[in-house]
Amino acid sequence: MVIRLSLALGFRAPVRKGEGMTETTTREIGVTELVLRDGHQSLMATRMALEDMVDACADIDAAGYWSVECWGGATYDACIRFLNEDPWERLRTFRELLPHSRLQMLLRGQNLLGYRHYEDDVVNRFVEKSAENGMDVYRVFDALNDVRNVRQAIAAVRRADKHAQGTICYTESPLHTIEGYVQMARDLMDLGCDSLCLKDMAALLKPQAAYDIVKAIKDDLGTDVRIHVHCHATTGVTLVSLMKAIEAGADVVDTSISSISLGPGHNPTESLVEMLRGTPYSTDLDDARLLSIKDHFATVRPKYTQFMSAITGVETEIFKSQIPGGMISNMESQLRQQGAGDRLREVLLEVPRVRAVAGYPPLVTPSSQIVGTQAVFNVLMGPYKALTAEFADLMLGYYGATLGERDATIVEAARQQTGKEPITERPADLIPPEWDRLVSEATALEGCDGTDEDVLTYAMFPGVAPGFFKERPDGPKNVGKDPAEVAAERLASASGGGPVHGPIRYSVNMDGKAHSVTVERA
Amino acid sequence: MVIRLSLALGFRAPVRKGEGMTETTTREIGVTELVLRDGHQSLMATRMALEDMVDACADIDAAGYWSVECWGGATYDACIRFLNEDPWERLRTFRELLPHSRLQMLLRGQNLLGYRHYEDDVVNRFVEKSAENGMDVYRVFDALNDVRNVRQAIAAVRRADKHAQGTICYTESPLHTIEGYVQMARDLMDLGCDSLCLKDMAALLKPQAAYDIVKAIKDDLGTDVRIHVHCHATTGVTLVSLMKAIEAGADVVDTSISSISLGPGHNPTESLVEMLRGTPYSTDLDDARLLSIKDHFATVRPKYTQFMSAITGVETEIFKSQIPGGMISNMESQLRQQGAGDRLREVLLEVPRVRAVAGYPPLVTPSSQIVGTQAVFNVLMGPYKALTAEFADLMLGYYGATLGERDATIVEAARQQTGKEPITERPADLIPPEWDRLVSEATALEGCDGTDEDVLTYAMFPGVAPGFFKERPDGPKNVGKDPAEVAAERLASASGGGPVHGPIRYSVNMDGKAHSVTVERA
Repeated sequence: MVIRLSLALGFRAPVRKGEGMTETTTREIGVTELVLRDGHQSLMATRMALEDMVDACADIDAAGYWSVECWGGATYDACIRFLNEDPWERLRTFRELLPHSRLQMLLRGQNLLGYRHYEDDVVNRFVEKSAENGMDVYRVFDALNDVRNVRQAIAAVRRADKHAQGTICYTESPLHTIEGYVQMARDLMDLGCDSLCLKDMAALLKPQAAYDIVKAIKDDLGTDVRIHVHCHATTGVTLVSLMKAIEAGADVVDTSISSISLGPGHNPTESLVEMLRGTPYSTDLDDARLLSIKDHFATVRPKYTQFMSAITGVETEIFKSQIPGGMISNMESQLRQQGAGDRLREVLLEVPRVRAVAGYPPLVTPSSQIVGTQAVFNVLMGPYKALTAEFADLMLGYYGATLGERDATIVEAARQQTGKEPITERPADLIPPEWDRLVSEATALEGCDGTDEDVLTYAMFPGVAPGFFKERPDGPKNVGKDPAEVAAERLASASGGGPVHGPIRYSVNMDGKAHSVTVERA
Repeated sequence: MVIRLSLALGFRAPVRKGEGMTETTTREIGVTELVLRDGHQSLMATRMALEDMVDACADIDAAGYWSVECWGGATYDACIRFLNEDPWERLRTFRELLPHSRLQMLLRGQNLLGYRHYEDDVVNRFVEKSAENGMDVYRVFDALNDVRNVRQAIAAVRRADKHAQGTICYTESPLHTIEGYVQMARDLMDLGCDSLCLKDMAALLKPQAAYDIVKAIKDDLGTDVRIHVHCHATTGVTLVSLMKAIEAGADVVDTSISSISLGPGHNPTESLVEMLRGTPYSTDLDDARLLSIKDHFATVRPKYTQFMSAITGVETEIFKSQIPGGMISNMESQLRQQGAGDRLREVLLEVPRVRAVAGYPPLVTPSSQIVGTQAVFNVLMGPYKALTAEFADLMLGYYGATLGERDATIVEAARQQTGKEPITERPADLIPPEWDRLVSEATALEGCDGTDEDVLTYAMFPGVAPGFFKERPDGPKNVGKDPAEVAAERLASASGGGPVHGPIRYSVNMDGKAHSVTVERA
């Protein structure tokens, strides 16, 4: 399907053909549409209800995307925690409504969609079940770029005869080099991956780096190694990075339809299409379908205003802190809860220091939360006066290996605080078989239907699953709100229970005489 | 100052120098900062008051910009119409606050900053006076790309020994070709321009076109012809276009500080800086200064929320209609006034047809308004049932020559409606000397101080100047509003004209004595 011409030529003018006619030999660039997963995850805290997506599916299915990312990441958690939606039902619905599309998901390797490591059998079952329910393409990553943590999931995807995509999380540090990324690409391809993803979750990937990494991987592993590039848009430069990645040979890029794009989200699908016009590359997406998809989500978007990210424009300061956009608002709320809302800048300066101490992990779920929260602790209580349990585990190797060495003093502090020993093996190797236990615990819960799918829900979200199983019969809860309703609520809260305003002083001239008047709510 | 290395090399990896060290020979790219003119013109209807800019000037002056666009365009009109600010005083203030910067303005050729053609003597006086008051760089354009209409202004700028920048308005049509743009570049350079500007006022310039045009001009006229590239951001692709223009040899690009950027505005300055890191190009702007400028305008921006453009994300449909972002909201309001708010899409489809009838003019002030309003008329009353006076003039040649032939039937209709004959000469050649008349009319007005500057104000805005001269002594009027004040007003209007609320009780302290007061709608 993909014609690989002019791969190594970089940017060049189209071929001219007599009398002003232009004939262009183009290489087709695949596009993964993100709106059904990472688009709304990044812009509206993953709150979009399935019912607000279904009407766009026919257009999405026919638009000509390489794949449709629609599951995984934080959607599973959001479904059961906020939306009373069964994530498996959502997957089956997409399978039905997108019959001609490759369904794609984001899978956190050995963490699956949860926040701890699972034993291999649980990983295998998750992949089997999701494949059975309709998943096609698995983008598998590990937050530390520890390839041992994606090995099992990738093997399971291959066994299920689905598309296994090995992921390189892009980050920058004194230790991260192009050669290092090429080595990781080699390691992932050695696992039998069908493709690679260069994942830029914080919009740090600048054009030159995008070009150099994609080029180096293609040069080293061969041009038939498929490379997908995923960028967020937060810093404003990454559409250029996609252009450069394409020039260097990237095969597929990720975008989100314009009405759910930009800010901490992604580059707009339509802009990518237009960017490539007249170049030796094209997307072959259907403009009319894109317009319908855009219009659909432009209507949906205002319903979720209350969940929208505060970042709307670009934010280039994150090149220094390297903190993904979504995390900054998280930290702000942590700080405010501690009455330290004014100390965000200190925390942003602390994050790179904590990251260095931890051996320069990429910052992506869950490492971003772990490093970010420890930075908040350091600012509020003094450096490493207290370690979070997760940060201690990170320092002790329980999340896997980092590229850099971890600070020995803090490793020792973690050892003393937790009583756990540092490890160097693959964390999952220390986990005893747990499937049977998970089955018996899950099936004992009210409302659990006894399927492997329910057991997996319990396995990944043991705190949320019991409530979800119980309330599931009530059916999906759409947390979006009619914009008119939102305006009315805001008004009511402003005139009634809003913030207390101090007294206001007026000078009032009444019947020709000046009075000093103070007014406050009684 | 600008080192022209690797000009024709396009994009390439930096030069490697042993053991992982990277040494890069870079070409310095100049940057024109737009925030003081086109930035707020595009995003907040040109309403920003001078007092909201002064505190940023020290940082702007020291940041390392090639130039600072701060005058011209719609700012002159906005100053006297909305802000009770003398535009000449604004210019002198910038001259004082930006002593190390090149001040830049946008000048509509023979139209100056008004909406009709002026006799050459008026053009000369305007350029002399603005040069005297501190202007350095004149970007001179004509809405129809009729070089005859910029000739006089460019000659005047050269006589004043200032920087004359000839402008190519970028547009697309069956008749617009790269060779045509090169020919226009040649014509402009023949006038003695110091540089050229490729002006993309509607964000239509895609990366390949940007590359091809800049490359073709440099190839034809020589690499020492300085090319500046001005793009809006509305379609989301033009930062990539700037990258490609730079690769093709562009010398200076225009951006606006991130807190006043994107949407119908421009690409963010900081994103441009980051985009170029590691490439063979660099900006040498001062990051710390940029951060201060950004923070300053991030604080100012909320004051102008009421004037903000409705377009916040990207809008790629304008590739079809070619209508600049600012104009769409204009049309919407025209249509609403006629009770036809639902017919915008019809109008957007009509615009390209009207443009074809008119010989494919670029759409930029004033041609965008002229074509847009005629499209509204056509939709509301039937095609060309009524011609606006301005559209009739456009058809008859009174704005100058267009690239394409104008529709003979409509030219005839214009002739019959107006009684005017079609012309082919330079429109200003038909205007008799008018300076003395303008002087006597202006100086007769109350409050006119008799300076040439005041006469020019009257010449360009004869309807607005009388009121302005009278009210000028009251001093500048800042139309920005404290965000808290805006919220309070919204609340007041909501509790007033909105749903009826019950009585509200206040405790009112009057001259030291407390009263319990109940207020309700009478």
